[in-house]
Amino acid sequence: MSLLIVGSVAIDSIETPWGKVAQVLGGSATYAALAARLWTPVSMVAVVGSDFPKPYSLLLEKQGLNGDGLQRVKGKTFRWKGRYDANFQAHTLFLDLGVFKSFEPKLTPKQQGISHAFLGNIHPSLQWNVLRQLRAPKVTGCDSRDDWIKHNRKEFLSLIKKMDLLFLNDSEARLLTGTHGLVQATRQLARMGPKVAVVKKGEHGVLVASRDSFFSLPGYPVHQVVDPTGAGDAFAGTCMGYLANQKRLTWANLCQGIQLASVAASITIEDFGPARLSSLAKADVLRRSRAFQAIARPVHL
Amino acid sequence: MSLLIVGSVAIDSIETPWGKVAQVLGGSATYAALAARLWTPVSMVAVVGSDFPKPYSLLLEKQGLNGDGLQRVKGKTFRWKGRYDANFQAHTLFLDLGVFKSFEPKLTPKQQGISHAFLGNIHPSLQWNVLRQLRAPKVTGCDSRDDWIKHNRKEFLSLIKKMDLLFLNDSEARLLTGTHGLVQATRQLARMGPKVAVVKKGEHGVLVASRDSFFSLPGYPVHQVVDPTGAGDAFAGTCMGYLANQKRLTWANLCQGIQLASVAASITIEDFGPARLSSLAKADVLRRSRAFQAIARPVHL
Repeated sequence: MSLLIVGSVAIDSIETPWGKVAQVLGGSATYAALAARLWTPVSMVAVVGSDFPKPYSLLLEKQGLNGDGLQRVKGKTFRWKGRYDANFQAHTLFLDLGVFKSFEPKLTPKQQGISHAFLGNIHPSLQWNVLRQLRAPKVTGCDSRDDWIKHNRKEFLSLIKKMDLLFLNDSEARLLTGTHGLVQATRQLARMGPKVAVVKKGEHGVLVASRDSFFSLPGYPVHQVVDPTGAGDAFAGTCMGYLANQKRLTWANLCQGIQLASVAASITIEDFGPARLSSLAKADVLRRSRAFQAIARPVHL
Repeated sequence: MSLLIVGSVAIDSIETPWGKVAQVLGGSATYAALAARLWTPVSMVAVVGSDFPKPYSLLLEKQGLNGDGLQRVKGKTFRWKGRYDANFQAHTLFLDLGVFKSFEPKLTPKQQGISHAFLGNIHPSLQWNVLRQLRAPKVTGCDSRDDWIKHNRKEFLSLIKKMDLLFLNDSEARLLTGTHGLVQATRQLARMGPKVAVVKKGEHGVLVASRDSFFSLPGYPVHQVVDPTGAGDAFAGTCMGYLANQKRLTWANLCQGIQLASVAASITIEDFGPARLSSLAKADVLRRSRAFQAIARPVHL
């Protein structure tokens, strides 16, 4: 089944302790879609400006991501410039929302019938907007960020009650629950509405809770983090893409999706921007997933 | 085979967001020994003062830990009073080293012949002192703390070259390597001398590296952390105790020991001081270890 992905498409300039790149393809929808396409057909809902570079249109087209849902409007594409310090904390140096500021997600009739949807990191009112346009959503997931959890809390809290999966990182989970301990916070999130709460902890792996189950994995031991941009989106995209290709949302399917998601995120951060992700094959993810099993397998006693 | 454990025996007063206890049995050797005794006979090398409470002597005796190596000298037992904040960061409120200040570990002739030794969190010169007294050490491990890594760096670096296992927590690993990323730091430690580097990350689990292998586990999802005191010592004690009961130090044995250690640490922190640990049975650890397998098992794809 297809996966609908809504989020941003951006042009990023990124500095890390390992070098820098200028004006590469970025945005939450981009990373999520590039990761999800390995597992299921993806339909994007996003907006770019008239300055959106031709090579990036071609790249998306080549990956089957350049459908009707990708609006092109007059103006500038969302631009972000950021620097990661030695501890890989992000610092925004420049931000211009451009045409994204007035983005009104408008699903095509075909998109309205898609059963699986990932509502990426955009304003909760836009996430709600997309959700309302779906005729028969079957498995839905969403992400967010600190700003919206702080300033649009009520709207976001009502949204997650409709979600099957909620993806947050550690600081967002703490912010939404007011709980510092992440095991407790993850369990708490699973009681706040979504069927499943997924808390991404970067190098420390991931915690997953439903009302009655718990699952966790350590991070895949990456040799060298080069650029963490998009890791969270690649994570959610992989998990949602994998689930869209399964008949049902079961706990076993979910755990498999989470493992593949961890692996995809670990590959994403080994090069700048979407460089690794845009050339990635399913076999690459499956190969590392098998290696992961040997590294992180609890032993029988 | 027996396990020799050297470290502190103390009297602790502990405050956490969940309550407080006064003058409970504490110290690195105590926690390590109470955990290790489940897997192998333990011989302690430590010192207490003339004020050491009789009930604590009886408790240690009941657990087989009150041997000749536990010196009793005139003066005060090491006392620590600490408070953990809401994020479980420790703040020392009072510290009196007492007789521990002039502790000279002196192994009995029988102890000198013990093959397995854990050099707990004491000054590196004392750790060296104990190591030199061992006639034929087979598997050795050590722990440390920030102060000694900072101020006795050279001595500690020479010690770890002699160790099979080095146990450090995340901040100590960063301090010793100068590397922030913990996967890299753990691998780096494994190239600095010890056969195996173990980096304990609290709720985030553990990273284990040899020169050519890597293993990691997430933390066991504890419902409520009550008091983190002694978790690291219980971890190392369990791992060393388990290994002392194995014919050889293999990677598989090590991974089993690490898993049991993670479980023992997770049980330790569910009550104040050594309350849980001193009444713990092997079956309790094995039961949670099996539950851990279901929660943290990478899936086959």
